[in-house]
Amino acid sequence: MHRIPAGVLGASGYAGRELVGLLLGHPVFELAFATANAQQGGTARFGPQTVTFCAPESVDFAATPLVFSCLPHGASAEWVSRARAKGARIVDLSHDLRPGHGASISAPYGLTEFNRAPVQQATVVANPGCYPTSILVPLAPLVRQALVAPAALVTVTSASGVTGAGLSPRTDLLFGELTEDYRAYGTANGHRHLVEMRATLAAWGADVDLHFTPHLLPVARGILSTLLVPLRAPIGDPLAFFREAFAGEPFIEVADDPPTLHDVQRRNVVRVWATMSAHVRQPLLQVVSAIDNLVKGAAGQALQNANLMFGLDETLGLPR
Amino acid sequence: MHRIPAGVLGASGYAGRELVGLLLGHPVFELAFATANAQQGGTARFGPQTVTFCAPESVDFAATPLVFSCLPHGASAEWVSRARAKGARIVDLSHDLRPGHGASISAPYGLTEFNRAPVQQATVVANPGCYPTSILVPLAPLVRQALVAPAALVTVTSASGVTGAGLSPRTDLLFGELTEDYRAYGTANGHRHLVEMRATLAAWGADVDLHFTPHLLPVARGILSTLLVPLRAPIGDPLAFFREAFAGEPFIEVADDPPTLHDVQRRNVVRVWATMSAHVRQPLLQVVSAIDNLVKGAAGQALQNANLMFGLDETLGLPR
Amino acid sequence: MHRIPAGVLGASGYAGRELVGLLLGHPVFELAFATANAQQGGTARFGPQTVTFCAPESVDFAATPLVFSCLPHGASAEWVSRARAKGARIVDLSHDLRPGHGASISAPYGLTEFNRAPVQQATVVANPGCYPTSILVPLAPLVRQALVAPAALVTVTSASGVTGAGLSPRTDLLFGELTEDYRAYGTANGHRHLVEMRATLAAWGADVDLHFTPHLLPVARGILSTLLVPLRAPIGDPLAFFREAFAGEPFIEVADDPPTLHDVQRRNVVRVWATMSAHVRQPLLQVVSAIDNLVKGAAGQALQNANLMFGLDETLGLPR
Amino acid sequence: MHRIPAGVLGASGYAGRELVGLLLGHPVFELAFATANAQQGGTARFGPQTVTFCAPESVDFAATPLVFSCLPHGASAEWVSRARAKGARIVDLSHDLRPGHGASISAPYGLTEFNRAPVQQATVVANPGCYPTSILVPLAPLVRQALVAPAALVTVTSASGVTGAGLSPRTDLLFGELTEDYRAYGTANGHRHLVEMRATLAAWGADVDLHFTPHLLPVARGILSTLLVPLRAPIGDPLAFFREAFAGEPFIEVADDPPTLHDVQRRNVVRVWATMSAHVRQPLLQVVSAIDNLVKGAAGQALQNANLMFGLDETLGLPR
Repeated sequence: MHRIPAGVLGASGYAGRELVGLLLGHPVFELAFATANAQQGGTARFGPQTVTFCAPESVDFAATPLVFSCLPHGASAEWVSRARAKGARIVDLSHDLRPGHGASISAPYGLTEFNRAPVQQATVVANPGCYPTSILVPLAPLVRQALVAPAALVTVTSASGVTGAGLSPRTDLLFGELTEDYRAYGTANGHRHLVEMRATLAAWGADVDLHFTPHLLPVARGILSTLLVPLRAPIGDPLAFFREAFAGEPFIEVADDPPTLHDVQRRNVVRVWATMSAHVRQPLLQVVSAIDNLVKGAAGQALQNANLMFGLDETLGLPR
Repeated sequence: MHRIPAGVLGASGYAGRELVGLLLGHPVFELAFATANAQQGGTARFGPQTVTFCAPESVDFAATPLVFSCLPHGASAEWVSRARAKGARIVDLSHDLRPGHGASISAPYGLTEFNRAPVQQATVVANPGCYPTSILVPLAPLVRQALVAPAALVTVTSASGVTGAGLSPRTDLLFGELTEDYRAYGTANGHRHLVEMRATLAAWGADVDLHFTPHLLPVARGILSTLLVPLRAPIGDPLAFFREAFAGEPFIEVADDPPTLHDVQRRNVVRVWATMSAHVRQPLLQVVSAIDNLVKGAAGQALQNANLMFGLDETLGLPR
Repeated sequence: MHRIPAGVLGASGYAGRELVGLLLGHPVFELAFATANAQQGGTARFGPQTVTFCAPESVDFAATPLVFSCLPHGASAEWVSRARAKGARIVDLSHDLRPGHGASISAPYGLTEFNRAPVQQATVVANPGCYPTSILVPLAPLVRQALVAPAALVTVTSASGVTGAGLSPRTDLLFGELTEDYRAYGTANGHRHLVEMRATLAAWGADVDLHFTPHLLPVARGILSTLLVPLRAPIGDPLAFFREAFAGEPFIEVADDPPTLHDVQRRNVVRVWATMSAHVRQPLLQVVSAIDNLVKGAAGQALQNANLMFGLDETLGLPR
Repeated sequence: MHRIPAGVLGASGYAGRELVGLLLGHPVFELAFATANAQQGGTARFGPQTVTFCAPESVDFAATPLVFSCLPHGASAEWVSRARAKGARIVDLSHDLRPGHGASISAPYGLTEFNRAPVQQATVVANPGCYPTSILVPLAPLVRQALVAPAALVTVTSASGVTGAGLSPRTDLLFGELTEDYRAYGTANGHRHLVEMRATLAAWGADVDLHFTPHLLPVARGILSTLLVPLRAPIGDPLAFFREAFAGEPFIEVADDPPTLHDVQRRNVVRVWATMSAHVRQPLLQVVSAIDNLVKGAAGQALQNANLMFGLDETLGLPR
């Protein structure tokens, strides 16, 4: 098969680096460029290969059918427009085009498993946030099958590795500040992801309140989310329910035991476990889900979407 | 002031080590013995000092007015009885005598701040678990002032450093297995602590369901608990509420920002922060609390109780 | 190409797990069995696949042309003999058959890059230790080209991730004991590796003393070795020297900067950097080398040797 | 005893923070000010206490008999001069006044145990670097008793926790970049410390070459140094030698086993172990020493020097 040139805008951050690494191993897409504003002319190593960063202004979008934008939130939408104007198709990994953000560019939400048809047709796809991916995947079949109690309060506690905060020169993200520490955070970031999740749940017709508390873990990568979902009625066998709901999905695993970060690191999967909560008076489903925030939570899902957009096997080039 | 001999049963585990270290720096209590079944004759270093472990059978309880038991759950109650029979007063750090465990020995629950009078009079004190300490301290004023909504579902997500799992030769606790990992757990341990918390809440007259999910962190020490508490009505200023509720408490801190593990490691404090949850339809209080599981969650609170039992200043020898 | 059955003895430890994972992705070898004494009937997950452990006694070596032994030191030689008697060819990852250990079974030393012809012909190969791999690879061209000063004292300081110590239930390897720690060790293990390195250097005709100090790092995987090698005369451009010496080697990288563990984790490479030491009176070469102790230091190199033994492309199924 | 006001210039970095913490617990010195250029008006918590940073320009040195400078290298000397001109006595923790740096201000080198008399009399003391403290302390008795072989090459490999690199917004020091990593470094920093050590050794009359390789550890605090010292003749019992050499020293410990970082963290000690190297032809002493880089390697030793300068018990306020 002939190769399809693919470029990465904002390739020097964590998600961009991950995406470049995946593209270097992809059998059809071929890395055409990798931009990095601050480091243009600089290089990065990917195993035995070296990639040289260029300036986004130097890019020929007309010659690049596929563009990924890992640019910072706020800066991405403009470059998406430029690339689209030249005929490129784009997967945008920023917040800019996601549900609830009032974007002027319309783009289907690339939570792949629940939006395949629109993604296949799309010129631009809004790639989901990492937290929303870990949370919305298990919520989707519950909401879609109307199992959630009306006006329920769904509570989610998530913990993320520090690559979720980006490759930024911040003293609060130094090793010396985070080792042996753990904290709740999430006013700024948390809210942005909360908006994205609420808008998506509303679009799905869910009548729920969502309470979300993110935490920062002293690990590099991975997100673990613990959900409590009030149901209309107990589900007899929650694992069987999810196994049926996700049957045939190559990137969703239903586990016999609560997943851990080690189960999912460097893999493009959402791993889910669930049980009915004992000892409480209402029917309450507890779900634990895990993803790699840089793979299924960012670069991997972006590539999964791109595979669909270009009519390829959805699993091409993705680590399982 | 003359010194009071104090002994530690089960001194080779994490809580026992911490307690021996605190006793070596205590101005009134004086380390009389430190037992370790498997390591008798062995030694442990505490800064410039070295302690030699002896067998519990060799101990003269009659000459030791104060005994701490850090023996394993199940084995502790018997030694508490033996020591009590010889006239010692005991702080038991095991589950054995805690609320909800059906113990034959009656012992006040040593959640110090809420039980001072019984502790002062007690021959035996049941020292609280680490998770319950982090959770019950902020719940206490809410329950006691009847602010919690009737039949509420209180949900708690906690994360603990690995010393909470003890100094046991288990492959699942090896560094190579836990670094860069994070997981929910808590069938065994979780349930025991859940029983302790439910029994205590019931004793306080609370009509609540409690859902508790513990997690294992790749850090050595510290517990962070995130609580969601449905209220009868919103509290206008939750920090002011807690500041008033805990006024004068030397070991409870109300913080302006969510506490982190670094704030409390190696200190005998519970640090609490709270806010009313926005974006949800019901009045919902979110609380984050942090402790050092080995200090306020074990050895430190045990020493705090012992200080009270012997009529000493409650803060003696405790790191703040 | 038809698949070749390959079995792993001792598959539940770290090296065995790594090897099973590599075999599951190998295009020619096919996992025939994975034994685990203590866990027979137990299972382990490898991404989406699950492997069930069997007892070594149940294995049909006659049907398994290729066997890897990851059995403990001391126990491995006997099983190598059994498998060989049934016609299998074996790569032994234990110390048992390595240089200097007085083994009764003769086996070429599988430091692949320097022993290809004997490995290709061998029935049994002694796979090198992890430390020796990181140290002997850069020493080899210096010794072979007689650049080392006569009777020189070569000093090596190495640091290894904790998987090097195995998946053993030892309290000194618990996360709580090793996080935020670092130590020199190496009487037992160090000496065994020292014997292996000395015997190899002697076989190469080197007239050197070797001083070796291993350290234990709070990381899961990786070895970094820092060597100081007195030379007969300065090398003008040490990087150019190593680039020429290792030209064409697929698994040896000569780097422009000192390598770090991140450069080599999960890859079957030795990464080497060198410089002449300034500020000292004698010609002294400083070398820094890095490997993944479980890949190039164990399972990866074992598979590299097996590829050669079966006439396959040496790089098949190996992560670069 | 009346309290002596003491100020800290540059209190927002790691060494400054440590020093402020120690001063808050000191029985005689009393924190008068803590400056932080970038964060003036900002605050930092030290257990239950909060400290507000001021601008250095606002400080009244005439009212502060004791000043510690934790200012950046290059910026410190000027402020030392200003403070001295107002009558303050100063301990400077920067490189600026250390041996080999060609400082215009003369200041005794505060490697306390070997320079007590000059320190007691000094107006300004140059506090040693962290690496030099860990290395020069065990070298001192060997050099001073002329045990080192003439023209010997002394080789030192050290590994430091990341607080040694300071609290700077550098992406290469982020948690996500350093966890599970380990590296040699040390052109810049290493050389500065090498200059300091060479100048000190020369001042002691040592005829040695010194080779020094620093490494960066994924831990917050601590330095472990491994030294190889060629001797004129073997020392029969190296531990006995060091015990005698350091007899009576409150802050130097000679250990029966190689020290680890856990042995020294948060303590103002150098912990030393040594053995004669077997298996090599020359008499070679191997030494392992450990310190906390922020305590004995910076703030603690600075306070130890200040205690001497003000005629106090040298151990006052220092954690052992």
